[in-house]
Amino acid sequence: MTLERPFLKSAIAKCFLRPTVITRPPPMNFSSDNVTPICPEILAAIAAESDSAALPYGADDKSQQLDAAFSELFGTEVCVVPVATGTAANLVGLSGLVSPFGGIVCHHHAHINMTESTGVAFYGGGAKLLGIDGPSAKIEAGILDTYLGKHVSNGMHSVDPECVAITQTTEFGTVYGVDEVQAIGKVCRKHGMRLFMDGARFANAVATLGCHPADITWKAGVDVLSFGATKNGALAVDAIILFDPKLRRHTEKSRKRGGHLFSKHRYLAAQLLAYLQDDLWLRNARHANDAAKALQHSLESLGAEAAFTPQGNELFIRMNDKLAQRLRDAGLVFRPWASIGPDAYRFVCAWNSPIDVISALPHTVG
Amino acid sequence: MTLERPFLKSAIAKCFLRPTVITRPPPMNFSSDNVTPICPEILAAIAAESDSAALPYGADDKSQQLDAAFSELFGTEVCVVPVATGTAANLVGLSGLVSPFGGIVCHHHAHINMTESTGVAFYGGGAKLLGIDGPSAKIEAGILDTYLGKHVSNGMHSVDPECVAITQTTEFGTVYGVDEVQAIGKVCRKHGMRLFMDGARFANAVATLGCHPADITWKAGVDVLSFGATKNGALAVDAIILFDPKLRRHTEKSRKRGGHLFSKHRYLAAQLLAYLQDDLWLRNARHANDAAKALQHSLESLGAEAAFTPQGNELFIRMNDKLAQRLRDAGLVFRPWASIGPDAYRFVCAWNSPIDVISALPHTVG
Amino acid sequence: MTLERPFLKSAIAKCFLRPTVITRPPPMNFSSDNVTPICPEILAAIAAESDSAALPYGADDKSQQLDAAFSELFGTEVCVVPVATGTAANLVGLSGLVSPFGGIVCHHHAHINMTESTGVAFYGGGAKLLGIDGPSAKIEAGILDTYLGKHVSNGMHSVDPECVAITQTTEFGTVYGVDEVQAIGKVCRKHGMRLFMDGARFANAVATLGCHPADITWKAGVDVLSFGATKNGALAVDAIILFDPKLRRHTEKSRKRGGHLFSKHRYLAAQLLAYLQDDLWLRNARHANDAAKALQHSLESLGAEAAFTPQGNELFIRMNDKLAQRLRDAGLVFRPWASIGPDAYRFVCAWNSPIDVISALPHTVG
Amino acid sequence: MTLERPFLKSAIAKCFLRPTVITRPPPMNFSSDNVTPICPEILAAIAAESDSAALPYGADDKSQQLDAAFSELFGTEVCVVPVATGTAANLVGLSGLVSPFGGIVCHHHAHINMTESTGVAFYGGGAKLLGIDGPSAKIEAGILDTYLGKHVSNGMHSVDPECVAITQTTEFGTVYGVDEVQAIGKVCRKHGMRLFMDGARFANAVATLGCHPADITWKAGVDVLSFGATKNGALAVDAIILFDPKLRRHTEKSRKRGGHLFSKHRYLAAQLLAYLQDDLWLRNARHANDAAKALQHSLESLGAEAAFTPQGNELFIRMNDKLAQRLRDAGLVFRPWASIGPDAYRFVCAWNSPIDVISALPHTVG
Repeated sequence: MTLERPFLKSAIAKCFLRPTVITRPPPMNFSSDNVTPICPEILAAIAAESDSAALPYGADDKSQQLDAAFSELFGTEVCVVPVATGTAANLVGLSGLVSPFGGIVCHHHAHINMTESTGVAFYGGGAKLLGIDGPSAKIEAGILDTYLGKHVSNGMHSVDPECVAITQTTEFGTVYGVDEVQAIGKVCRKHGMRLFMDGARFANAVATLGCHPADITWKAGVDVLSFGATKNGALAVDAIILFDPKLRRHTEKSRKRGGHLFSKHRYLAAQLLAYLQDDLWLRNARHANDAAKALQHSLESLGAEAAFTPQGNELFIRMNDKLAQRLRDAGLVFRPWASIGPDAYRFVCAWNSPIDVISALPHTVG
Repeated sequence: MTLERPFLKSAIAKCFLRPTVITRPPPMNFSSDNVTPICPEILAAIAAESDSAALPYGADDKSQQLDAAFSELFGTEVCVVPVATGTAANLVGLSGLVSPFGGIVCHHHAHINMTESTGVAFYGGGAKLLGIDGPSAKIEAGILDTYLGKHVSNGMHSVDPECVAITQTTEFGTVYGVDEVQAIGKVCRKHGMRLFMDGARFANAVATLGCHPADITWKAGVDVLSFGATKNGALAVDAIILFDPKLRRHTEKSRKRGGHLFSKHRYLAAQLLAYLQDDLWLRNARHANDAAKALQHSLESLGAEAAFTPQGNELFIRMNDKLAQRLRDAGLVFRPWASIGPDAYRFVCAWNSPIDVISALPHTVG
Repeated sequence: MTLERPFLKSAIAKCFLRPTVITRPPPMNFSSDNVTPICPEILAAIAAESDSAALPYGADDKSQQLDAAFSELFGTEVCVVPVATGTAANLVGLSGLVSPFGGIVCHHHAHINMTESTGVAFYGGGAKLLGIDGPSAKIEAGILDTYLGKHVSNGMHSVDPECVAITQTTEFGTVYGVDEVQAIGKVCRKHGMRLFMDGARFANAVATLGCHPADITWKAGVDVLSFGATKNGALAVDAIILFDPKLRRHTEKSRKRGGHLFSKHRYLAAQLLAYLQDDLWLRNARHANDAAKALQHSLESLGAEAAFTPQGNELFIRMNDKLAQRLRDAGLVFRPWASIGPDAYRFVCAWNSPIDVISALPHTVG
Repeated sequence: MTLERPFLKSAIAKCFLRPTVITRPPPMNFSSDNVTPICPEILAAIAAESDSAALPYGADDKSQQLDAAFSELFGTEVCVVPVATGTAANLVGLSGLVSPFGGIVCHHHAHINMTESTGVAFYGGGAKLLGIDGPSAKIEAGILDTYLGKHVSNGMHSVDPECVAITQTTEFGTVYGVDEVQAIGKVCRKHGMRLFMDGARFANAVATLGCHPADITWKAGVDVLSFGATKNGALAVDAIILFDPKLRRHTEKSRKRGGHLFSKHRYLAAQLLAYLQDDLWLRNARHANDAAKALQHSLESLGAEAAFTPQGNELFIRMNDKLAQRLRDAGLVFRPWASIGPDAYRFVCAWNSPIDVISALPHTVG
């Protein structure tokens, strides 16, 4: 990169080299994983990408490497369609799996059902969300099988399910085991359903399970995955992974039409390639998961109770107002989580959560 | 930012501090302004923003400053709704100005009419583009007045215009003068039309006109402006500027529903604030404009002919195949531009175009 | 009407004058009220309307009388927007009451939720159905109040209810009493909701309640009613009744855009005016209700059990296979109704159900 | 039909049997063919259909005969999807031929482009109308070939044509000859386009050409035809004729979702079967065409000038204000037609236009 403005040299250097560990308090904001900054490797990749010109709209070198990189990661040929937000990845990713007359079965608490406005119907040309229940925000294969089996199509009149969507890791921080995803995939095949996986926190699930990414995706019957990176160290990118190459054309058109095609596409690619490099995605996720477990122990010894055993990077805690206030006074930031209970709170750890400080909480919290 | 991975320190420093002027050829890729890297000031802002946690979805400090910053820039109270792409800024920005039964009058060559798929109808709930002609991709107030005056509404049956959209700087690199925008605004008011301005290259127009941004926007009757930054040094951000605060609610809902609300919203805000800081937006644009003029002179002395006098950073050139090949052999990259003619080409300059090298072309091109 | 083809004279006369009571078996098809023919008064009106030319698209004399006729019926100023189907009346009628980002609260079993494909989202630009439970397909005001009170808006992220839709008479043939509609209207006002009434069988409810139509509509807070006639003697017409005149423009545009504006609009108007004439609508409904009660008594003495006391023209019956077969052998046609139970069936009576034959069933069924 | 209200007997008989030729002035309303009443044969069919119960939603006997009846008419296997309006036939018929990202090429003056609100984009999920020019509202195969050949797809960015739509008889009353339709069909196949025919006045074209219906539809490459009956003697019905059976499912779902599926479907079927019976459709159309020619001769001898030679039932006339007033004073009703010129008017004849009275106009007009 031509530094045509040399006076910036020292300013930029300062940003990267200052010893912040000493001068700044550790990040104790557990309100979400999207409050985190970009992790250094990805920031470096963005900076490195700013060295020269590059073709736009995905024609640049980095973007051209995506299919191969993810194909290698998943052990099968995939198409990658990157977008900047998780919501876009879900909406655009789902749009190729359902007709304007069809339904998408999901858990009541699914992000696509609760927190994406009317986006699914918007991108789906009218497609309807059919919410079902399940413990800990997970869809159980048996319940799904019953639900799909009981549905009687009323020809043109009814909205018939065409697709099932599950979130891995779920909105309650729980993880589908390999066998659980396989069971759901089997039920989908039995009933002729497509299968979509909202993987905003996919990395955390793989880190927990220690499985191959293929085991909980295409090998289990997943057709499309939104492979999240924004919550796990990136600036803003989520990759739609198409396990069925026939979906590429429609997905790319849907992306463009929705306004999600980046002209400086290389910056999405650079983030993703750095994310995959040397398993950064897994390292970041493992760290976040470990931090959640450490936080669980610390909070439990302070008198709190975990609503679910954290399987990913999210921790749902029950505690009384007093303890909540003590934690806040100690500088922790976290949100109440009413959908679990009036005394429930959510803590989300991330790639930069300070495990040592977290472990020391029982001693430091007043 | 806590550098928890100190081994990166030197790698990152290298990216920013290496003397690239000596070791790398200057950027001669004029195929578009979206091939450019991020300019240093904005890259620095992104890096600086990576220092700590921040609230998501626009609740962070930087995002909270946007309304004030842009209100000051425009000299009136505005609402800012940032998105990551120019297409999203147009589609979401327009969606609040037209009903699902209405029409948007634009130039045939408008980006929204030629290069945004069916996005306008998508976000507009069916709204229809009504393309009209005009010289050099500009809508003439008189022609617009006639067009709107001649339109006879057929009640529920017809698609009646509700909004007019103009591009500043136009798709042919021409600029509407202050009086021209005022004239269009006047016609819009006369016929009860809303007025939208696609400002992907708004900066270049202001740089050319030397006017106050207000003069060619709200003071002239513009209701919504997409204030582009991506083509002018940013990574990826365009700000929808609402001059009518009543549009905020609908625009924010449309943005979210379209999947364009960034969780790490601070990164959009950081780019925008750096973009406004010390008039960086204007300096970048002026440089690009100057480079375009320098390029025009160089190419003309080599035997080419400008189709239009460049008023912004785009140059449309007519030349024979021989000269085109000589330029390519000299390392210039540029696109043919069939909509102007079979022997026409487009050259787009940007914030980092090397004016000295450009000026030397008559001597360096073989 | 000019009979330019006199050879048809006798053929047509035959259709109307033949003594069918003697030569044809009485109608025992209780599968739905939409299996019925047009009642004579309305058929006569259609024939009478075929006398001369008339302006199209609602400009004819008959259509011009609609607003006044319905305003008189409801005792307040209303706008009438006729369409040909009940589904169209619901979809177009609802489209003005909800934004593309909002939700419509309805009962799980509502026709708009179960039997109108993805039409609500289609016409509503994405609007989402939010189904709740209630006994006998009725929404209880208390449950609705709790549901609306518990909903926490998540700003741009969530789908917030904007409208409540109830069906009168419900899909299970039950009727909301005047006080019940009032209670729902009150809850809607409390929470700022619009209120829509699917009145495919509105006539049957009024016949049962013996109230003034205003009592269970605008006086109770209903904003829009689909006033059904197709199931109660018409050929095909349902009138969207707008109690808020400000909705006219949008509703008419939505109707036209959906393809529901009849050019020979007079035929919709003729049906509706005949339907209101001398309270034909109430007489037909009363007859259908009486037939349902007669059928209930007959079936109960044959050993069946009513799932609900019929309050309108629909009867939901529980009986064993043997009785069901005996009824079929006797010429009755009716449908199983799985949503109530495996041994449940629905019988729908109409304006032409032969009460004497129905009452004689205990003697005639083998 | 059981006449349970015998007092109506005489009233109904009167409607059909009174000698109106003597007592009522002949219809001289030429403002449109949709001002006409139902022709007797179809009214009789509606009445005859009101004899007994019948299954709904197309399961009745009459509806079950439609495919066979139209297959015989067209000489090939077709699927019939009836709806009540021409607009619905166009919108639902087109919806299966274009993707949400594609374009439909049509003439600028096409009804779908001028008079169907934003319906095409609505039912087409965003699909865009691409209007082109041609003499007398006809698309010329050569111009179409050039237009499609010149279009350069810009991948995901552009709206690429996917379908061509022509109107037969056109909006200017002109008719495509068999060879002309064949030529357009050939161009469509060459460029991979689907071909839709808006046949609101299809009957008039066949009557003029004296060809087999197959010659100007499927044999020439038409994929879907909206076979109009409303303007030619029916109450309200247009049949979507699918020449590609694979389109059935989508078209039926689109119809239902749009609210266009009649529950008393038999009444649509009864109209259509009567319309085909003994070539009623052709007789009505021939009469209308003949009346138009008679009217042309009469008006020309009164000093008017035909803008186009009438090829169907529509006549576009140029005349001065004086003659226009004389005609109005004589009881003729007709509309100015600005799209042709300031002194232009449209006269539309129909199945019941009094040719004798029309021929006598030169003597009767003051």
